Amino acid sequence: MSEAESVAEPVVLRDGVVDLLGVLAYGELSAFDRLAEDARGAPTLAGRAALSEMAAAEIGHFAKIERYLLAHGIAPQDAMDPFVRHFEAFHASTPPRSWHESIVKAYVFDGLAADLYSQLAHWLDESTKQLVLDVLADTGHSAFAEREVKTACEADRVLRDRLTLWARRLLGEGLTQAQYIVAERDGLTELILTGSGDLAGIAALFRRLQQAHGKRMTALGLG
Amino acid sequence: MSEAESVAEPVVLRDGVVDLLGVLAYGELSAFDRLAEDARGAPTLAGRAALSEMAAAEIGHFAKIERYLLAHGIAPQDAMDPFVRHFEAFHASTPPRSWHESIVKAYVFDGLAADLYSQLAHWLDESTKQLVLDVLADTGHSAFAEREVKTACEADRVLRDRLTLWARRLLGEGLTQAQYIVAERDGLTELILTGSGDLAGIAALFRRLQQAHGKRMTALGLG
Repeated sequence: MSEAESVAEPVVLRDGVVDLLGVLAYGELSAFDRLAEDARGAPTLAGRAALSEMAAAEIGHFAKIERYLLAHGIAPQDAMDPFVRHFEAFHASTPPRSWHESIVKAYVFDGLAADLYSQLAHWLDESTKQLVLDVLADTGHSAFAEREVKTACEADRVLRDRLTLWARRLLGEGLTQAQYIVAERDGLTELILTGSGDLAGIAALFRRLQQAHGKRMTALGLG
Repeated sequence: MSEAESVAEPVVLRDGVVDLLGVLAYGELSAFDRLAEDARGAPTLAGRAALSEMAAAEIGHFAKIERYLLAHGIAPQDAMDPFVRHFEAFHASTPPRSWHESIVKAYVFDGLAADLYSQLAHWLDESTKQLVLDVLADTGHSAFAEREVKTACEADRVLRDRLTLWARRLLGEGLTQAQYIVAERDGLTELILTGSGDLAGIAALFRRLQQAHGKRMTALGLG
């Protein structure tokens, strides 16, 4: 968006906030992409429709962040660009090999993102905070994943063990990429350091993420 | 949906109407799938976002047809099943080899579907007619396609000629599949024969579709 087109005197977003929204926006776009591809591998037409509808919900969220960034004079592409390769690296290193692995991946990753952002949201200005909380609202994917995975695992112990290891690996890879991202972006580091208080605060944040992940695994019938 | 869950005494939809809605629903699901895949091949992040948002709009339409079918005691999967292989055959025989071919394909196919259904809509009961017209509302894809293709073709005569041939082939394959579908389904044949009056009426319908296609090609800067 050129300066002439931008909203008159928009509130200037801090670098760290633009980064957070860029990560979130690209996360939604990439979740869309992933769910749309997983939908293609659904064992039934009903499963395919369900996953396609969830993918569409991610794009609804993406569009909200897009509008917010534009209203603050930021081109969404510029906000997302720095993070594309981290997401691609994560996806390239964790290709699902089955329908259930696809679902667990989406579940783990969405849950992790929701936890992380709901923690960060409290360190943001009010309007950005509302946007973030709104965008992270569950699109129905969790209930769907819990149903699909739990039922399958109850009937198949080997599958259950395999998916447990898979989920553990995803958590590791996800946190690794998150740490790379934070380390690379000064604005983000500052935002998180200021918000959490100190390095011990960051460690506590990561611990909380791991605990919440553990609870989700139980809901899925894994671990 | 079990009978116990279905809406009390729903209006019974004629077989031909269920078929029409099944084709339309699967068309939307398959358009979603196609657009989501094309989005991945977009040359820019902005193009990718634009196409992903259009894909999401198709799912919004799909959800409306799904709700309508369910409210009339029809499982969407049953309505769509008979047409899956026709769509797959069409897509398998026309794989786009470039970003521009993807866009032209979506444009040709959406346009054809919108023309066909807006003709058929007038032979339907009022509530189905409203659903169909609502679902066929342009999702912004046309303007996007016209912009992307026209600009590229103005600068590249070879591309223009190649895309013109491509669009012509798509029209042929699309009409062929449409004729197969109609011939296979008694309810559809009856609906169209009754609506159009006779075989000459069907010929006139196909002629109108071809004329409208010609106009769209001009809008795209092709042909």
